[in-house]
Amino acid sequence: MDERLKKQIDFIVEIDKLKNVFRQSYLINDSRKENSVEHSWHLALMVVILSEYADMKNIDILRAVKMSLIHDIVEIDAGDSFAYGETSWKEKIERERSAAKRLFNILPSDQAIELKILWEEFENMSTPEAKFAASLDRLQPLLQNYFTQGKTWREHGVTRDKVIKRNVPLKDFSAELWELAVFLIDDSVKKGYLNK
Amino acid sequence: MDERLKKQIDFIVEIDKLKNVFRQSYLINDSRKENSVEHSWHLALMVVILSEYADMKNIDILRAVKMSLIHDIVEIDAGDSFAYGETSWKEKIERERSAAKRLFNILPSDQAIELKILWEEFENMSTPEAKFAASLDRLQPLLQNYFTQGKTWREHGVTRDKVIKRNVPLKDFSAELWELAVFLIDDSVKKGYLNK
Repeated sequence: MDERLKKQIDFIVEIDKLKNVFRQSYLINDSRKENSVEHSWHLALMVVILSEYADMKNIDILRAVKMSLIHDIVEIDAGDSFAYGETSWKEKIERERSAAKRLFNILPSDQAIELKILWEEFENMSTPEAKFAASLDRLQPLLQNYFTQGKTWREHGVTRDKVIKRNVPLKDFSAELWELAVFLIDDSVKKGYLNK
Repeated sequence: MDERLKKQIDFIVEIDKLKNVFRQSYLINDSRKENSVEHSWHLALMVVILSEYADMKNIDILRAVKMSLIHDIVEIDAGDSFAYGETSWKEKIERERSAAKRLFNILPSDQAIELKILWEEFENMSTPEAKFAASLDRLQPLLQNYFTQGKTWREHGVTRDKVIKRNVPLKDFSAELWELAVFLIDDSVKKGYLNK
């Protein structure tokens, strides 16, 4: 097999492992926790469906969708870090950088560079596409929580101020989606899904 | 909440159910069957990584990625149909059409129409993007089978001629990927993963 195609197939086979990295969020039917692949697919479709709410103009939707699809691949080596957990963020960043290096470098170098740039942009929210995708990356688990009566929040005793802080990137990205997030958070407190 | 945004959120919540539709293919680590969301994410990334192999030019990658992400949503109502199973294809098509109508119509009408058109194109392989995505939709389970020593093929006694026939769309799409598929299939027969 051609060397370039072999590297691409090796990468496609390697990323199958992300299907076994589980998150703290539950499926909406409450049957089990979701994994990082399921979350990434859901996020990519949210990017497609909700792009009209971006206050910024000229967003390259394909780039934002690519970021959504690849943003958690580093978790194959680094594991999932719970947003409201005790993780040392410095160590998390180091683990994920090292994972990005190993995993994306399975690809031919031009594609490795492209995906590493997309991943770094997403992590740093340094471009309009990254702000867009990373904001929705916060809204996705908020929806999973709201529609499971705050299951993950209740398990970990998460408080309103933490969820508000976590979702602040939405505020800069879209007035309407920020309003939605605040409504869901406040309604969750009212219904007892989330601590005050 | 604004009526349009409400419909979009209703759709985003509804499609969570696809995470519970399981296929006959196994994860590459052989631990369990994969679900249709995991397959769709994998396919979308194969579209991103392998687009250079399209013999056709001017493929709109974003459209092909969108098709990959949504092509199995109908299975929420219609269930997964095994490619080498006893399914009546006429009944399958009827079930899926009815599912597409219900599910995509949860969205505002402009988006419902867009996704229904993308889904129909994919099903009929009627555009270059659809040929592209639908060809890789065959290659993805072929890889899952090859790297699990033909687990699904062996369970169902699938034969070489059926897998060749199933993968023929690759031939028109890309000479290199067709060559890869034939190599994987013949090597599988040689190694005893697939019946002659």
